Amino acid sequence: MALAEVHAARQMTLANVRAAHERIKPMIHHTPMMMSDSLSQIASTRQLKIRFFIKCENLQKSGSFKFRGASNFMAQQSDAALRRGVVAVTTGNFGQAVALAARTASRARSFPIHASVVLPATSAPSKIEGTKRNGATVVLAGSDPEDRERVAKQILQYTGGTLIGPMDDPRIVHGQGTATLELMDQVRESAGETLDAMVLPSGTGGILAGAGIVCEDTDTMVFGCEPSEGGPDLQRGLASGVLSRPKKQTSVADGLRAATSKGNFDLIRQKRLVDEVYTVPESEIKQAWRLLMEQLRVIVEPSSAVSIALVLFNEGFRSMLAARKSHWNIGIVLTGGNTTVTRMLEEFEGGRRGVRP
Amino acid sequence: MALAEVHAARQMTLANVRAAHERIKPMIHHTPMMMSDSLSQIASTRQLKIRFFIKCENLQKSGSFKFRGASNFMAQQSDAALRRGVVAVTTGNFGQAVALAARTASRARSFPIHASVVLPATSAPSKIEGTKRNGATVVLAGSDPEDRERVAKQILQYTGGTLIGPMDDPRIVHGQGTATLELMDQVRESAGETLDAMVLPSGTGGILAGAGIVCEDTDTMVFGCEPSEGGPDLQRGLASGVLSRPKKQTSVADGLRAATSKGNFDLIRQKRLVDEVYTVPESEIKQAWRLLMEQLRVIVEPSSAVSIALVLFNEGFRSMLAARKSHWNIGIVLTGGNTTVTRMLEEFEGGRRGVRP
Repeated sequence: MALAEVHAARQMTLANVRAAHERIKPMIHHTPMMMSDSLSQIASTRQLKIRFFIKCENLQKSGSFKFRGASNFMAQQSDAALRRGVVAVTTGNFGQAVALAARTASRARSFPIHASVVLPATSAPSKIEGTKRNGATVVLAGSDPEDRERVAKQILQYTGGTLIGPMDDPRIVHGQGTATLELMDQVRESAGETLDAMVLPSGTGGILAGAGIVCEDTDTMVFGCEPSEGGPDLQRGLASGVLSRPKKQTSVADGLRAATSKGNFDLIRQKRLVDEVYTVPESEIKQAWRLLMEQLRVIVEPSSAVSIALVLFNEGFRSMLAARKSHWNIGIVLTGGNTTVTRMLEEFEGGRRGVRP
Repeated sequence: MALAEVHAARQMTLANVRAAHERIKPMIHHTPMMMSDSLSQIASTRQLKIRFFIKCENLQKSGSFKFRGASNFMAQQSDAALRRGVVAVTTGNFGQAVALAARTASRARSFPIHASVVLPATSAPSKIEGTKRNGATVVLAGSDPEDRERVAKQILQYTGGTLIGPMDDPRIVHGQGTATLELMDQVRESAGETLDAMVLPSGTGGILAGAGIVCEDTDTMVFGCEPSEGGPDLQRGLASGVLSRPKKQTSVADGLRAATSKGNFDLIRQKRLVDEVYTVPESEIKQAWRLLMEQLRVIVEPSSAVSIALVLFNEGFRSMLAARKSHWNIGIVLTGGNTTVTRMLEEFEGGRRGVRP
């Protein structure tokens, strides 16, 4: 590891996640933790009893847990830096989070903070709208990540502003980690229980790395999951020791169409923060997506359904659980809720008619 | 009023709603109260500033506030009575609520409590399934309410069981009232605010009457709303002084396809519990339904959208508000979340294509 990486890894402690939580508490929603008898019942058999404890970050400000990381990053910037504006490069929820975090910080500090969000030119109109509605300037660049980074660099050179990110920046990871920290507290306080395991999805790996830090010195196991479609790079990387660029990503779980960040990968691997990473096929993600909405009565984007799909449908995962013990309290984070009714129509229409249009 | 009615009306006090709350607290979910900057922004103009405080009873056990009334009724029955079983006549959410309340009471009292739910033979399969899944026996009878009542009477004669209802029974109304009682507390505790008004939908009138009792000696105004389609019987009844049977009800807000209960009507009218009742057209209910799901990220059934639609779109209502003062804290109850993705597809498909199929 280079010296900078050693330094970053050393910062990745529960104490720093707790400090981040104190820092961002006034800005974030303390999102509800839900238990679902019906989902737990569906997941349970005679041999394997599962109770779900579900953290609703789809109800977080800006519609995803990413508001936590963006807020924690922003809170540690000087007035002078923020006056020059912030820039984010993203394909999705992080842009909306940065836009809203900038607006929130702007109100708190009583001066305008300009946010520029660089999105692929092919982004869904609802995503562009959502980012603009939160007050950011949307800059549309190519669909290639390198194009977008070049555009961001130009903006930064011109404005002298601050780049929010990358997603393995410790300030971001600490912020994301506060979601699972809160979940642990809620499980203890409102149900008097502890979690036997958490299951988190991995895109750039931020919320998974955060959960790993939170659970490091506890008895709570941490499992990761990725869509099979488009190349599960974290699973392969942990198996081979080398992170390779994933193939073109096309999963319905659009929030996870991202390469694992180098720093998050190194952290997860070197500190062995995650017990195992599994993959989930598209049909199971969609089935779990529908179940979540109908049984839990919350709107989630498909990325939020990957963990539930793993627990409900993956026989390898379920056998592994059952072999260890019979009763499992499992923590899940619904990572985001940024979807539209139109998107749902498109995704489910085929299923209803028996054919994909 | 007959003596029994006088007696019932005298029971309708805030103290009794509070007592109901203490009674059912261990059984119900303390559902979250959500604030939505985006919905409040959409509702506000330069002249009229609106802040929504939204109580998520769609996340209540059994998927609607009706679990409160059913639980409060059940809690006041003797063991001997409950051993003979309970019967409910309903077209919707109340059946699922009674089924789950019976199962919950059964666990608490350690003996089986058999619930029979009489539904129209034409009920949606998902509704029948939901009721069965909660452990009740579903009895399908004719689509005419009188047919169903006759069947229920036969079951009661045979079993010696207890009829849960009707919907103007004080034990039911007190239970439903706890939803708005909790909302008032949550607005005060978590936001340090008070409500200027509550807007509640009316089917049989239970949650509206309950809210009226809760707000009776406060400065919070209470407004009711009904779908225009199929005959707004409460609005007409209050105007004419006589409750007439509504026309065949076909509104998309299926949870409100019910006649106002005589007792709830008398109570609302005689105690002047409601400031005004408005009607809402179908297109506005659907638009608000979609907005709620996309902006608040919760699954609601269309009945839950009628209040929001009134506040967002009814110019008469909005002018009345603006004429009184410029800033309004408005409380809303999302009454239920029992819908399916298939139902959404059916309802929104036409809009997406520009034609109704």
